[in-house]
Amino acid sequence: MSELFAIKWEDGEDKLVLLDQTKLPNSIEYKTYDTVEGVYDSIKTMIVRGAPAIGVTAGYGLYFGIKNAPEDSFEKFYNSVEEKAKYLNSSRPTAVNLSWALKRMLKKIEAEKDKPIAEIKKILRDEAKNIHREDIEICKNIGENLITLLKDNMGILTHCNAGQLATSRYGTATAPMYLAKEKGWHLKIYSDETRPRLQGSTLTALELYMAGIDVTTITDNMAAVVMSQHKIDAVIVGCDRIAANGDTANKIGTFGVSILAKYFKIPMYIAAPTPSIDLNTPTGRDIPIEERDSKEVTCRFGVWTAPKGVKVYNPSFDVTPHENITAIVTEKGIVYPPFEENLKKIIK
Amino acid sequence: MSELFAIKWEDGEDKLVLLDQTKLPNSIEYKTYDTVEGVYDSIKTMIVRGAPAIGVTAGYGLYFGIKNAPEDSFEKFYNSVEEKAKYLNSSRPTAVNLSWALKRMLKKIEAEKDKPIAEIKKILRDEAKNIHREDIEICKNIGENLITLLKDNMGILTHCNAGQLATSRYGTATAPMYLAKEKGWHLKIYSDETRPRLQGSTLTALELYMAGIDVTTITDNMAAVVMSQHKIDAVIVGCDRIAANGDTANKIGTFGVSILAKYFKIPMYIAAPTPSIDLNTPTGRDIPIEERDSKEVTCRFGVWTAPKGVKVYNPSFDVTPHENITAIVTEKGIVYPPFEENLKKIIK
Repeated sequence: MSELFAIKWEDGEDKLVLLDQTKLPNSIEYKTYDTVEGVYDSIKTMIVRGAPAIGVTAGYGLYFGIKNAPEDSFEKFYNSVEEKAKYLNSSRPTAVNLSWALKRMLKKIEAEKDKPIAEIKKILRDEAKNIHREDIEICKNIGENLITLLKDNMGILTHCNAGQLATSRYGTATAPMYLAKEKGWHLKIYSDETRPRLQGSTLTALELYMAGIDVTTITDNMAAVVMSQHKIDAVIVGCDRIAANGDTANKIGTFGVSILAKYFKIPMYIAAPTPSIDLNTPTGRDIPIEERDSKEVTCRFGVWTAPKGVKVYNPSFDVTPHENITAIVTEKGIVYPPFEENLKKIIK
Repeated sequence: MSELFAIKWEDGEDKLVLLDQTKLPNSIEYKTYDTVEGVYDSIKTMIVRGAPAIGVTAGYGLYFGIKNAPEDSFEKFYNSVEEKAKYLNSSRPTAVNLSWALKRMLKKIEAEKDKPIAEIKKILRDEAKNIHREDIEICKNIGENLITLLKDNMGILTHCNAGQLATSRYGTATAPMYLAKEKGWHLKIYSDETRPRLQGSTLTALELYMAGIDVTTITDNMAAVVMSQHKIDAVIVGCDRIAANGDTANKIGTFGVSILAKYFKIPMYIAAPTPSIDLNTPTGRDIPIEERDSKEVTCRFGVWTAPKGVKVYNPSFDVTPHENITAIVTEKGIVYPPFEENLKKIIK
C-alpha cells in the first residue's frame, strides 16, 4: 500500500507519469508519456481527470509537442506551438484549467521571444514545472489554512473527490487530511460514496486508504446517522464555483450534507482555490446546473437497477446556500461571513 | 405494462402465484406453487420478501402441506400440521410475520378440533385467505387515512420500498399512491433509490412505473434539491418499528430525509400497521440497529466500487426522532403528537 499520485514529472528523463484513473479502484496502473499525442489521449480518455490535474498535464503535453520543433525561425516555432496548443485544447474543450495552462505557456513564449529557441524550449519546460509546483502550493496552502480549524482525533465527513487524484498533490478538501498525517495526527475520515458516479468511494476512499489515512466509506444516506453518533466534528468539501454572495456549487448531495451539518451544529467548510470564486456570478441562482444522462442513475457499471423507461432526475451539482457555510478556505486565507463583503477582500 | 402483484391466490385451482422478486427489475416472472416445499423455497430464496407478504405466503404454504394429510386421527393430523409449520418457520427464522401467521393457523385448528378433518382442511384454507384479505384491508385502510392528508397534483417523496411488492396489495407507504390513481388523481412520486440495496429503484420505482403511476427515480443525495425546487409536498415512508414515544426505525436514510423535510417545512408521514408500534420499546435508543455486510456498500451487483479492505460502516436502519414526524398513519387512524400519549390510545 503506498500513496497514489495523479501526476509525476521525471525530471532527468523528460517524462510524465500518470495514474490511469479509468481503472480505479480495481487496478493501480501508471503510464509514462513523452509525446503530445499521448498526453492528448490521456486527457481525452480521462486517464487524468480533475480540473487542476488536467491543467498541469496539458503544460507538459505542450512541451512534448514542441521539444523537437525546428529552431531556425521564431515565427515558424511559434506557429507550431500554437497548433499543438489548439490540438491539446480540443481534448476536453470545456475544461477551464486546460485552456488556462496552454494560454499561460503561450504568453511565456511571447515574453521570452528574444531568446534563442533552444533556450525558449527549456523555459517552457520550466513553465510547465512552475504550473505543477504552484498547483501543489495552492493545495498545500489550503490545507495549512484548513488545519488551523481542526484538532487531532477529529472526525471529518467529506463528499465526492476534491482530492489528491484531481490535483498534483494534496487535493483541496483532502489537503488537511494529508497534512495531518504528516504531523502525526489521527483524523478519522468518513467518505460519502457520492452517487451516482461514486467518486467518494472509487477515488476519495481509495486515495486516503492507499495513503494510510483512517477512512470509512458510507453511503450518502448514512451521513445523518454518523453525525448523530458524534463521529463528525467538521464537514470539508470542495467546490466547482462560488458566487459573490458565498453560495457554492458542488457535487450533487453537498446541499443536503450542509442541511444535516446545520441540524447537528457541525461546521461546514468549503475548500476553494481562489480561481473558483466568481464575483461575476451574484448568487447561486445564477449558476446553471448541468443535468446528466439518466443511465448514470439507473445503469451504473452495466447493471440496471431501475426499470428501463422510468423517469430519472440527475442534476450533477447542487448549490449550498451561503447561510449553511461556516467558512470558505482558500490558499490565501480563511473567509468567514459576511461572504459578500469578505470574498471581495481575499481575491483583491 | 401492467400492475405487478407479489401474491395471488388462484381460488378454483388451489394454487399460489408469486412474483419472482429475485429477478427484479430486469425480468418479470411469476411462479406457481402448490406444495409446502415449493413455498418453503420461495421464502428462503426471497422470491417473496417483505414481512406481510411472507406471512400471507406461509399461510397458504401450511395449507399445501396438510391438504393431503391422512384424515383418520386428529392427533396424527395435528402433529403433521405442527411438523410442516416448524419446517416452514425455518425458512426465514427471524421473520416475525412468518411465525405469527403459522401460529394463527395452528390456533384455528385447535378452535375447530371437533369438526371432521376434511372440514378443518377447508377451514385452514379459508384462514390463509383471511390472513391474505386482512393484509389487503390493513394496507387499504392506511392508504385511505393517508390520502385525507393529500391533494390532487401533489409531489410525494418516498424512501425504500414499503410497497405493494412487500405486501399482498397496495403496500403501506405506497397505498395512497395506488388509491389516488384509482380516484383519477395525478400524484407525482419521487423515489429515493435507497443505497446500498437500492430497493427504491429496483422495487418502488418499478412497481409504481408498472402501475402507470408518475414516478421519478433519484439518488438519495438529490432529495434536498427536489425539495428546494418545491417539488415535494409530503414525505411518506414505511417503518420497521415504532417506539412508545414515536421514535421510528426505518431503512437507513430515513432519518436524513426527516431532517431535510423539517428544513423545508414539508410534512413527514409514517405509514404504520399497528403491529409495528411497540409500546414495550420506550424510545428509539432502545431499538437495536443491525449492521450488515460491508460488501453491500463496496461491491453491489458484483462490481467493486471501493478499494478492497477499506473500512465500511453499513447500518441497515436508522431512527427518526419523534419530533421530526408530523403524523403516524395506521389502519385504525392518524396519530398526531404527542405520540407518547396518542399511540397508546390507537392500539388499545
